[in-house]
Amino acid sequence: MSTAYADRLIESVRVKATPLCIGLDPFADKVPAMFGDLRADPAAVLVKFGTSVIDVAAKHAAVLKPQLGLFEQFGEMGYAAARMLVEYGRAAGMIVLLDAKRGDIGTTAEGYARATLGARPGFDADCVTVNPYMGKDTLVPFVSTAKALGKGVAVLVRTSNPGAGDFQDLQVGGAPVWRRVAEMLAPETQDLMGASGWSGLMAVAGATYPDEARTLREAMPNALFLVPGYGAQGASAADAVAGFVATKQGLEGGVVSSSRAVTYPAAAQTAKNMGEWRAAIEAAMQAAAAELRTACNR
Amino acid sequence: MSTAYADRLIESVRVKATPLCIGLDPFADKVPAMFGDLRADPAAVLVKFGTSVIDVAAKHAAVLKPQLGLFEQFGEMGYAAARMLVEYGRAAGMIVLLDAKRGDIGTTAEGYARATLGARPGFDADCVTVNPYMGKDTLVPFVSTAKALGKGVAVLVRTSNPGAGDFQDLQVGGAPVWRRVAEMLAPETQDLMGASGWSGLMAVAGATYPDEARTLREAMPNALFLVPGYGAQGASAADAVAGFVATKQGLEGGVVSSSRAVTYPAAAQTAKNMGEWRAAIEAAMQAAAAELRTACNR
Repeated sequence: MSTAYADRLIESVRVKATPLCIGLDPFADKVPAMFGDLRADPAAVLVKFGTSVIDVAAKHAAVLKPQLGLFEQFGEMGYAAARMLVEYGRAAGMIVLLDAKRGDIGTTAEGYARATLGARPGFDADCVTVNPYMGKDTLVPFVSTAKALGKGVAVLVRTSNPGAGDFQDLQVGGAPVWRRVAEMLAPETQDLMGASGWSGLMAVAGATYPDEARTLREAMPNALFLVPGYGAQGASAADAVAGFVATKQGLEGGVVSSSRAVTYPAAAQTAKNMGEWRAAIEAAMQAAAAELRTACNR
Repeated sequence: MSTAYADRLIESVRVKATPLCIGLDPFADKVPAMFGDLRADPAAVLVKFGTSVIDVAAKHAAVLKPQLGLFEQFGEMGYAAARMLVEYGRAAGMIVLLDAKRGDIGTTAEGYARATLGARPGFDADCVTVNPYMGKDTLVPFVSTAKALGKGVAVLVRTSNPGAGDFQDLQVGGAPVWRRVAEMLAPETQDLMGASGWSGLMAVAGATYPDEARTLREAMPNALFLVPGYGAQGASAADAVAGFVATKQGLEGGVVSSSRAVTYPAAAQTAKNMGEWRAAIEAAMQAAAAELRTACNR
């Protein structure tokens, strides 16, 4: 692949003129019945629901983020469906960031890196989320696989969940643990640097903590951010782009993920047919894309 | 399930009179050619190799620990093979601890918990390894699923890899981060407590750091330990059981994992036929089981 992942991602954001990332989370109790019975026939329903979401998402969002844990609950059929949807999303022109939160070391980490970023039988995703708790040993195999394949790695730094602070906020010599994670990652961003000046070594930076996103930006000036927590988790569009930086094209520096609010809006849950459902999610995606576009002054 | 996971595990250790846990790590470049071409026909070769290892392991070890990342590199066929081997290991009377190192929150964590501990299409493993970086939110869905199913959860506290200290050792008010993780886990051990007085909320405690295992034991007196790093990673049997406690049956308090040293010993790699291969891994497993038995004064 000739173009670095960071450049492909930022180009996709520019083309769509919004940093919106659509989270694809197949909740068993939320996928509308018109797609079939998810528990009875998971592979078919996951693929039908997922491709239907992607058909709309590809028009309005730069990035697709399948949540692998919600596919794995359906066993290898779910696992295979997730891979099929990664392929479908990329074919539709989206950047696909697989939310797998893997974290291991050595040969096992190489296995996970191949499984997520590598070509078939791997997922061939553009990027994968990684957990740093085991240290830099975790990161190295993912980054080298990503570098070889023109892919990216998104490391959990400061997550958006209520308990995120349990360990991430512990104070170490006057700074929280997540800041130490960011400092360890910063030099590594060089390895996945694109011509755009952005690095494909991304940092996950929860939208619910905008002050921290600004601090994180200081520690990692070149890292693209993956910002979860926008939409259903309650953060505003302005909060979500707090770690972005001013450019000629407006605020830039990552993608902002929304899942429930754009794939299960209330109107979609009460839709009587596929046309109504499609219109409902399209309206939700357009609204989120526009809100983020405005927040980025595009 | 009527018997708590902790009780089933400790009973299995007593029956085998050794805390040996066999790590099942299908390295593509180490599985002997007599099992077939792993890259060409992964499902068949993984199952043939895995069942052959389990046939011997079940005689000498209490626990089996498949390393999921090394299966996932072969895609959904590898994923399905891992599940088949979990089932085979349990049918052979072993406790199966799935080394998946999952770590997420809310509904996604519930998805991973169902995928690993739940019945088909889940793996139906006895226990799963979990990464605590996202905080207590990560733990709760795994522990409640484990409690409902009579299963266990093994949380990464202090790992055995060279870079383990990058974040785990950061000093927080005079104690390392891993100690804070242990303190957060300690009250939660009550939820998975067995009649034996041991809890199925396990702590991963690297054998390469025996002093820390003793400190961890103070912080978590009831947690069973999963101790990696014995064998190929260089820790001695005495180091590996440093966090165990004296009982009438000898030292008890967890399981000690060995993978490469017992599944790919030198004699197995040069074996000319299946009989020689089986004898080679059996000798390695017997030696490890005996060494740990001695270290535990059984």
